Amino acid sequence: MALLWQHPPGYLKNFPNLKLISSLGAGVDHILSDPAVGDELPIVRIVDERLTWSMTNYVIMGVLNFHRQLVRYQEDQKKKVWDMSNPEIPTRVGVMGVGALGGDVLDKLNGLGFEVVGFGFSEKNEFRYPYYLKDQLAEFLSQVNVLVCLLPLTPDTEGILNLSLFRKCKKGTYLINVARGKHLIEEDLLVALEEGFISGALLDVYRTEPLPESHPFWNEKRIQITPHIASVTNPLAAAPQIIENYKRLIASLPLLNLVNRTRGY
Amino acid sequence: MALLWQHPPGYLKNFPNLKLISSLGAGVDHILSDPAVGDELPIVRIVDERLTWSMTNYVIMGVLNFHRQLVRYQEDQKKKVWDMSNPEIPTRVGVMGVGALGGDVLDKLNGLGFEVVGFGFSEKNEFRYPYYLKDQLAEFLSQVNVLVCLLPLTPDTEGILNLSLFRKCKKGTYLINVARGKHLIEEDLLVALEEGFISGALLDVYRTEPLPESHPFWNEKRIQITPHIASVTNPLAAAPQIIENYKRLIASLPLLNLVNRTRGY
Repeated sequence: MALLWQHPPGYLKNFPNLKLISSLGAGVDHILSDPAVGDELPIVRIVDERLTWSMTNYVIMGVLNFHRQLVRYQEDQKKKVWDMSNPEIPTRVGVMGVGALGGDVLDKLNGLGFEVVGFGFSEKNEFRYPYYLKDQLAEFLSQVNVLVCLLPLTPDTEGILNLSLFRKCKKGTYLINVARGKHLIEEDLLVALEEGFISGALLDVYRTEPLPESHPFWNEKRIQITPHIASVTNPLAAAPQIIENYKRLIASLPLLNLVNRTRGY
Repeated sequence: MALLWQHPPGYLKNFPNLKLISSLGAGVDHILSDPAVGDELPIVRIVDERLTWSMTNYVIMGVLNFHRQLVRYQEDQKKKVWDMSNPEIPTRVGVMGVGALGGDVLDKLNGLGFEVVGFGFSEKNEFRYPYYLKDQLAEFLSQVNVLVCLLPLTPDTEGILNLSLFRKCKKGTYLINVARGKHLIEEDLLVALEEGFISGALLDVYRTEPLPESHPFWNEKRIQITPHIASVTNPLAAAPQIIENYKRLIASLPLLNLVNRTRGY
């Protein structure tokens, strides 16, 4: 059994007796993208309530800072401006990816009284919120002014946050990407900010991490960056799941949190 | 019937036939502090779910920005620092004042999975969260590292956020005051910041509003100020309540949201 997080591609060829691969986090894109992994070994991932909790808190922080215009008041404070006008931006949140993480974000925001809608690539029967599929992307985007990406990284979703998508957004939409850097075409975000389709963004993930010093995101005031800390695997939650799957592997029992390779998560 | 918001004290003497006073907001301290109001006229206030919603969102924004260290990451971004260490501050929230507003803050934070405790001046039988009375202030403060003031302004609570209270806090406690400026001894907060009992504050209310240009809060980086916008009375909710109370007054029916003068709210 191999426990992996961003291993050197091809490295698994050194282990001909491998029977199981476990990701050390929720994502498995770093495993599926390695051709040496092949199609036969089962792959499992960590599903951690605490990880979900952190992710949801981070996203709600981003939604509330947009809704209550924290950055505006920070700027006003610097300029000693007292401006009571329009203290709230009416906010409707669209979540791309409605699995364990996206579903919790939808539930918690709904619990706080926000209107929410979901978007994804799998058919859902009677989903608990309005739900849009791939071919309804434009309709989904027209409903919302905060866009949260919590999609898994798959060939379907890589680069999905691109200029064509941004130009379907309502002017002034706020972007929160907490999924993977490769979901976003980073230069397209800068264009969308200039064009006004996107008013700002909270980003936790990037094409290259750590974010290179020369990257334009560091100096873009409309983008708030954090260093891939929205949700960090908690060893206290992950270790028992890994041990349990090892025991199940030995006993030939069904594995926990088995990844469906067709879906990519 | 008089509809009041920070009227000139004594002005009501011009209305000898007055039968009812309605505040235009949730607070009535601006009415009770005017000796000319006397003890006999009934006073009503606005209880507005939307007002509660805004207040709660504002407080949760403050709690999450502390918990997830938004200001730290803003500073890191300016310095192009990528620091993934310790992404969350373990957070337990104490709410002073557990009425309509404080109770909703407690419920919503609890719903998000935060530990919460309450403090107040009225006995509560079997309150749904741990609850501390006036003589248990030190015990209450020792439980929490975020302190939210949502007390009504009464002789009991005026100046309650003072150096003596701050020095009972755990080092590094974060303060959110969304009640009234007079709850806080403003110079004591600056001392408590220097002494480390308070690590930062989100303030929406002040002794003098608008905050005077010379006030030290404008330039204190550990204090985030907003211009009394946490929760603004919504005319669409307030007007029907005012009309309903006018009709009830005429018909000699029990009034909505009647203020208890002894409690002060």
